[in-house]
Amino acid sequence: MPIVTFQPIGKSVSASAGTLLIDCAKTAGVSIDAPCGGKGACGKCMVRVKQGNVDSQSLGTLSKEMVADGYVLACKAVLLDEDVTIETPERTGWDGGKFAESLDEECLIRRELMPSIWEFDPLAIKWMIQVPPAELEDGLSDFDRFSRAIQKEWGPFEVVCSINVLRGLAETLRIDNGRVTVSLVYGDKRLNVLRVEPSDSTLRNFGIAVDIGTTTIAVQLVSLEMGKIVATQSDYNGQITCGLDVISRINYARLPERREELRALVLKTINGLIKKTTSAKGVSPLEICNAVISGNTTMIHLLLGLNPEYIRLDPYTPTILKSLYLTAAEVGVDINPDSWICLSPCVGSYVGGDITAGILCTDLATDSEEVNLFIDIGTNGEIVLGNRDFLMSCACSAGPAFEGGGIDCGMRAALGAIERVEVDPITGLSKCWTVGGTTPQGICGSGIIALVADLFMTGWIDSAGKLNRSKPSPAIEISGRNAYYVLVPAEKSGTGKALRITETDIENIIRTKAAIYSACALMLKQVDMTFNDIACIYIAGGFGRFLDLDKATILGLIPDLPREKFKYIGNASLMGSYMTLVSRNYYQKQIELANRMAYIDLSSDPTYMDQYMAALFLPHTEASLFPTVKPRK
Amino acid sequence: MPIVTFQPIGKSVSASAGTLLIDCAKTAGVSIDAPCGGKGACGKCMVRVKQGNVDSQSLGTLSKEMVADGYVLACKAVLLDEDVTIETPERTGWDGGKFAESLDEECLIRRELMPSIWEFDPLAIKWMIQVPPAELEDGLSDFDRFSRAIQKEWGPFEVVCSINVLRGLAETLRIDNGRVTVSLVYGDKRLNVLRVEPSDSTLRNFGIAVDIGTTTIAVQLVSLEMGKIVATQSDYNGQITCGLDVISRINYARLPERREELRALVLKTINGLIKKTTSAKGVSPLEICNAVISGNTTMIHLLLGLNPEYIRLDPYTPTILKSLYLTAAEVGVDINPDSWICLSPCVGSYVGGDITAGILCTDLATDSEEVNLFIDIGTNGEIVLGNRDFLMSCACSAGPAFEGGGIDCGMRAALGAIERVEVDPITGLSKCWTVGGTTPQGICGSGIIALVADLFMTGWIDSAGKLNRSKPSPAIEISGRNAYYVLVPAEKSGTGKALRITETDIENIIRTKAAIYSACALMLKQVDMTFNDIACIYIAGGFGRFLDLDKATILGLIPDLPREKFKYIGNASLMGSYMTLVSRNYYQKQIELANRMAYIDLSSDPTYMDQYMAALFLPHTEASLFPTVKPRK
Repeated sequence: MPIVTFQPIGKSVSASAGTLLIDCAKTAGVSIDAPCGGKGACGKCMVRVKQGNVDSQSLGTLSKEMVADGYVLACKAVLLDEDVTIETPERTGWDGGKFAESLDEECLIRRELMPSIWEFDPLAIKWMIQVPPAELEDGLSDFDRFSRAIQKEWGPFEVVCSINVLRGLAETLRIDNGRVTVSLVYGDKRLNVLRVEPSDSTLRNFGIAVDIGTTTIAVQLVSLEMGKIVATQSDYNGQITCGLDVISRINYARLPERREELRALVLKTINGLIKKTTSAKGVSPLEICNAVISGNTTMIHLLLGLNPEYIRLDPYTPTILKSLYLTAAEVGVDINPDSWICLSPCVGSYVGGDITAGILCTDLATDSEEVNLFIDIGTNGEIVLGNRDFLMSCACSAGPAFEGGGIDCGMRAALGAIERVEVDPITGLSKCWTVGGTTPQGICGSGIIALVADLFMTGWIDSAGKLNRSKPSPAIEISGRNAYYVLVPAEKSGTGKALRITETDIENIIRTKAAIYSACALMLKQVDMTFNDIACIYIAGGFGRFLDLDKATILGLIPDLPREKFKYIGNASLMGSYMTLVSRNYYQKQIELANRMAYIDLSSDPTYMDQYMAALFLPHTEASLFPTVKPRK
Repeated sequence: MPIVTFQPIGKSVSASAGTLLIDCAKTAGVSIDAPCGGKGACGKCMVRVKQGNVDSQSLGTLSKEMVADGYVLACKAVLLDEDVTIETPERTGWDGGKFAESLDEECLIRRELMPSIWEFDPLAIKWMIQVPPAELEDGLSDFDRFSRAIQKEWGPFEVVCSINVLRGLAETLRIDNGRVTVSLVYGDKRLNVLRVEPSDSTLRNFGIAVDIGTTTIAVQLVSLEMGKIVATQSDYNGQITCGLDVISRINYARLPERREELRALVLKTINGLIKKTTSAKGVSPLEICNAVISGNTTMIHLLLGLNPEYIRLDPYTPTILKSLYLTAAEVGVDINPDSWICLSPCVGSYVGGDITAGILCTDLATDSEEVNLFIDIGTNGEIVLGNRDFLMSCACSAGPAFEGGGIDCGMRAALGAIERVEVDPITGLSKCWTVGGTTPQGICGSGIIALVADLFMTGWIDSAGKLNRSKPSPAIEISGRNAYYVLVPAEKSGTGKALRITETDIENIIRTKAAIYSACALMLKQVDMTFNDIACIYIAGGFGRFLDLDKATILGLIPDLPREKFKYIGNASLMGSYMTLVSRNYYQKQIELANRMAYIDLSSDPTYMDQYMAALFLPHTEASLFPTVKPRK
């Protein structure tokens, strides 16, 4: 079999002729991005054949010059019967593993956003019970006495145990004379026993809140004793190499073995984060008896290994929307195997559990009469509009730009990410502030927004996002038809290479903000409302600690309204998962919200494309919509 | 590490000093019987050290001569830091794997015993439903439409699916335009979906009935279309090498890893039998969506990996008696993973699901006013007495003699087993009939009863079971204090060795019959009744096709009553499992019987030992109890 050697990493693998280069790379453990899911469309998996020949069936988006120079698409080129050496591009900050430490909890969720009055009543409870000793006369089994002791405290529930729990029951009951602590969740008529421990261990009760984003995954370890957040960790979703957005991910998932691969990848990320949060805090994963997981409908399908194909095809039907009762062992989450995995309910194929969780901490979940708007800015953008009488939602494909995806030096809001930028109007040079104040590694969402807004206000880019070629700046490099803005020179960068933004990056950012703004505008139009009718606009997203509303307005990402009308709520999906985890009321509220919420398909609106095109400028084609935005000419 | 070589099999294994020889043998895949569960009590694991030395901490039951000759107990001898060669005894017909083919179904269960009127209503049903196509407007998921289609046919059940079922749902619904066949079971409020297939596959619906005996396991493949028995197979329980009876098995199960070993062994036997029944009949194990499993309380604990220790210790408490809802994947049975594993309910630690299943085909399960007696003769003997108004049960430890266990040439009622014997009163020579008419391999329960009864009636053994040393016969060999009865000489035996019965074997048989008879007598005495008050005595057991009632009476196994009062019903536990599998009424009836049945502890009766001792003769010390039995003097 021919041998494939990957450079510069220096890994080799033998594979049979006919194998795709991207599959060879996977076998060799060499990571190559394929954001479009291997369709030959995005060109991101471009590699260079340095020695030998491959059969490059499709050259897709490659220019003649590149083809002449040996470039091929790894997702389309197949091995011939000869050895080859393949050069792969060096990867930038995109690789989540690079960042050794994470932000502290407040960057991810902001507990002060929780309503001032809420009932602490976690879904998974620990309860100490006294099980009477076995007696010959009554003929009762251990389980009989155990379940009766539970029913005595809790009422006539059907007590359900797994084999796992039963296996330890006889011994556990006898360690401390029948005194045991039971972890349980209860539903309508059934009470599920998740774990039984000897003596009183009620103080050690943990749960996790999980947000599965298309790009980023966050896990929060919560002590269910009083609802304290113990640790929070986030990382890129391990599925990223199989496609950047949900549609590419669905395309990638065509085959059952690919679905299994995607399932393993997301579980690897989640379980890695669980390990990080627990080991740092001396918690055993077995002490975690409940997980609340929120994610968009596709992410939930991929987590469960369900076929997402029909989410993409008319009439866009998912396999499930509401969750069944699932256990950690079934799903593959590395906590106590009988723990309940509670999935936030989805509304439709493109409005998922991240949204029903996300609005829990907003007035959309209260009985306010005022109409509020919720905008979740992620790889998919989702919008919810409503009050106590109606709730409607829509979705748009924004792309991962604000999470650092598809941007040359983009990264998530982790240590070393540039989160604030100021551009000097005279020199064009920028001043950067990073998360944790460390050497800059890349730029995250809030930094990207600040940078583009500042470049626009100071005249270094025009309203189409093109860099100013007429006014020289040490920060702007022109190379033929391409132009770059250098944010951090190589010598000051933590990656050893200059951190720079290309015009293509800026185009991506503008497309992202246009998708979100036009979706909001169109949704309001469909119900005959304007931004002025809204009491409060909640903005959720993984921007890190803060989102500069002024700069977001300059970008045209959000409407030009009095700032007090906006509330930046960060990772609302994680926040809502936390709320559900610690309060049964929110669990029920979320189901009710999912049932009430209507879904509107924006793409069927004939004016959709016009709205979007009009938003592809800074701040907008129609400048009158943004009266306070006055860029330097 | 020292190397242990086993002869004559010629297998070697290296193990660290301090390892028990029996564990070395297990690692090497060399099978050594340890019927007492490794307590050094039974002496069955005796091996001979041919080269090297071991540390034989306990010589248990071994004679001085044997010790001098190098014999040690494998369960007690530990490896020193030197290589050894160990000679293991050759094994006789005990090894279930020797018998290539099995009996046909009627040997195991007798369908003619089923009540003439019964409702065919299997627990697991297949139903063809039409699921309406997905529509954009209704916002329903595949599972929503699917469960509504089920509810339309079945009513407002909560529809429960596993992840497995959900994974295939989207595609299955679309193969034949929403026409799917659903395998399901339903309970109080819940309906569990076991499998979904495209189009109409209602004709392919299978279930299995399983009887887990301490010694023998039987599996019956049933077509649930009309209740037809497709194939039946039986084999020795793979746990036999870890102890012959339930108490030795419980002793062996002290450690968690031993419990896991026992669980794996019983599953290996069950899954092997499933493979045999299905592959012979062209059925895929995935087409089996329901199993009804009956076994004694210890066997069920070991199947589920539950700790059986407290079954043995006062106050004799099992972990469970009634079954929870379990799936094939949880239990480890190789059929469709979401299939329901329905375990017959147990009454107490020593009256299990095999008994509640066993009485289903008797008048004890009807509303007959007449009092009936049910005797299940297995490794444990269980007795049930009652009518529509009361049901009481007790158990005795009979031992596996009638299943071929603990008898030199004993075997189960498989091909080549001697099932009928006649002894010539003049020569003492015997004439044998085997199952399938093939070369004799050993002797099974019915043959053992016939042989001992005939030897007694013809005067070749006395009422204490001692062979007649005063009258020479070519069939009797005397060797010092030992005497043997040669049933089949080596040249006519299928094993190449003479098939013979020792006086120790006869002692075993007498102890077994004494345990059963005295238990019946004592139970009747406790309720102030005699055998004459009984309308019918049902005899269940693995004796094969028939049990000669005359010979069983001669042995004193059953009381001397008019023959028409007896009904031999064979493997009643398997029969009851079959009945439950095909008729929901019997499932409910069985639960009701288990709830009604009282358990009596015979061993606490002060006259227990007297009753037992009195029964240790042929037919009984009190000859007047057996007026029709008149042996030749």
